[in-house]
Amino acid sequence: MSNKMKSKTVQLSHGGGGKEMNALIQDIFFSEFHNPILNSEEDAALLNLSGETAFTTDSFTVAPIFFAGGDIGKLAIAGTVNDLAMMGAEPQYLSCSFIIEEGFEVSKLKTIAASMRTELAKSGTRIVCGDTKVVPKGCADGLFINTSGVGRVLHKGISVKNIQQGDAILVSRDIGRHGAAILMAREALSLESDLTSDCANLWPVIEQLIAANIDIHAMRDATRGGLAAVLNEWAVASNVGIKVEESAIPISDEVKGLCELYGFEAHDLANEGTFIIALPQEIAEGALEIMQRYGHCENAAIIGTVTDEHIGKVVIKTPWGSNRYLDLPHGELLPRIC
Amino acid sequence: MSNKMKSKTVQLSHGGGGKEMNALIQDIFFSEFHNPILNSEEDAALLNLSGETAFTTDSFTVAPIFFAGGDIGKLAIAGTVNDLAMMGAEPQYLSCSFIIEEGFEVSKLKTIAASMRTELAKSGTRIVCGDTKVVPKGCADGLFINTSGVGRVLHKGISVKNIQQGDAILVSRDIGRHGAAILMAREALSLESDLTSDCANLWPVIEQLIAANIDIHAMRDATRGGLAAVLNEWAVASNVGIKVEESAIPISDEVKGLCELYGFEAHDLANEGTFIIALPQEIAEGALEIMQRYGHCENAAIIGTVTDEHIGKVVIKTPWGSNRYLDLPHGELLPRIC
Repeated sequence: MSNKMKSKTVQLSHGGGGKEMNALIQDIFFSEFHNPILNSEEDAALLNLSGETAFTTDSFTVAPIFFAGGDIGKLAIAGTVNDLAMMGAEPQYLSCSFIIEEGFEVSKLKTIAASMRTELAKSGTRIVCGDTKVVPKGCADGLFINTSGVGRVLHKGISVKNIQQGDAILVSRDIGRHGAAILMAREALSLESDLTSDCANLWPVIEQLIAANIDIHAMRDATRGGLAAVLNEWAVASNVGIKVEESAIPISDEVKGLCELYGFEAHDLANEGTFIIALPQEIAEGALEIMQRYGHCENAAIIGTVTDEHIGKVVIKTPWGSNRYLDLPHGELLPRIC
Repeated sequence: MSNKMKSKTVQLSHGGGGKEMNALIQDIFFSEFHNPILNSEEDAALLNLSGETAFTTDSFTVAPIFFAGGDIGKLAIAGTVNDLAMMGAEPQYLSCSFIIEEGFEVSKLKTIAASMRTELAKSGTRIVCGDTKVVPKGCADGLFINTSGVGRVLHKGISVKNIQQGDAILVSRDIGRHGAAILMAREALSLESDLTSDCANLWPVIEQLIAANIDIHAMRDATRGGLAAVLNEWAVASNVGIKVEESAIPISDEVKGLCELYGFEAHDLANEGTFIIALPQEIAEGALEIMQRYGHCENAAIIGTVTDEHIGKVVIKTPWGSNRYLDLPHGELLPRIC
């Protein structure tokens, strides 16, 4: 259709299901995301899937919507791609649904759609269906995006319940960057200018691990609740104890500094491109090398082991040799982190 | 887990990824939606799909969240089930993502989750993965729900591009009820007390049509933009003319009354459990009988035909014998209708 967006801001009529909505969808979303399945314009996309398929959903409400290292659009693609990748699934098809506040700038929406397109290309996936809602001014804060995704499982058996005694625990990079970057953006801190979110899609490195036939027992991206939430969930779900060395956990100086300033712990802070993996001890060094050499995970590290002590708990060994429990985070950490 | 919701309203900490979020998810969502796939608590659900699969998404922002004949939860299940059903696909698996405003009442959330459960049971589908976000007070209006769905295609070839010259156009029941019910709820009109939304899942009737081997060319539920939007989209996509008889279109007296009062046209109003179907003229009566007898579509009617006149346009014949174009709705009809 030849319709073009005429207004500079999104209006209620753009969500009405009529002419204006067609113009918005054609001009902004189809122009960035077009592919044969999306273009079919049916009520639902038709996919050809076979065998075991992973399916996941996430709504993104991050504030601010632009931050160092990313924006809500990049996050919406990377986040859902990562949930699929963490199940050993190749991200194949995404849905995308926008809730837009009346008055939202069309130029910002275009920037975000372009950012999504770039991130889609990096993971080799595509948006095949979508939805657009516009709510009156004051009924939402700018823009919320939901993405859901499906993908073919290439490595079976990855599960929070599959962690074995003696497994090694690895982290893919320095932790806490996304939480710290959002905090920095909100507080308008400019001193820490080198700090960017880790926001990235993890499929390329996971693909390397699967291609190398690495026997992955469990794998999770450490989003809300950070490293601490993942390890605690694992300890309970697999009925094991997990012991980590605090000194082995990579944390950048910038994140350390912000944590000291605000009284946060880096292991509670959200990440958006950092994953934790549990696998047999004897292949840990090999997996680490693949992650570092082929997966752009230069700071990946072995940070702990799975034990039969303190079942259901995570024990952290401090640099001074003492041990303490690393608890599941609680309370209000940072709202609207993702 | 034994965690129970302690507070009467949803707090920011319920979206933090820690203990409180686990309690909310376990106590409200898992208790209503539990099934073996959802309970696995992985990052993504594992499904067994084969062959052609339909995939769709919708975000629901309806205001008010409770209305005559339904609520946002019922709508969120029926809406996505219907998008799959309209592609001839059996609704198999749904994802569900909540964006909750801080301060939202827990009792309302429980009512909505229970309503979703009831509607899931009616369509024989299940929620297999989810997400919960909480945003600060003022950053959303109560509750938004996204559902995405996948399902196996049982009737192939249904498409907006597949409408043929000579096809009959059928509507499954009286039109405009959802839009009218929302309008009534907003204006707090109590006179029109018999008017309820048509909100319902359509899979049972579609299953009957597919089982009877009806050759469906195109099928759409007439949501935002109503009957007028569907017919106009069809005329353009299939490059045909569509002619409808105004007197044949079923409209209830309540909807007619509200339309007169507010200056709306019933064919522009949204529906949430009403579909339009295009199929060969010679099987139209048979299809109508199946819809009426087995699909609880007592008011289903043949309303028009597909012609080679006025290609790309919809022509409506008024009860007085004159013809006019039925245009694609434009402007701000009713915001937050779904």
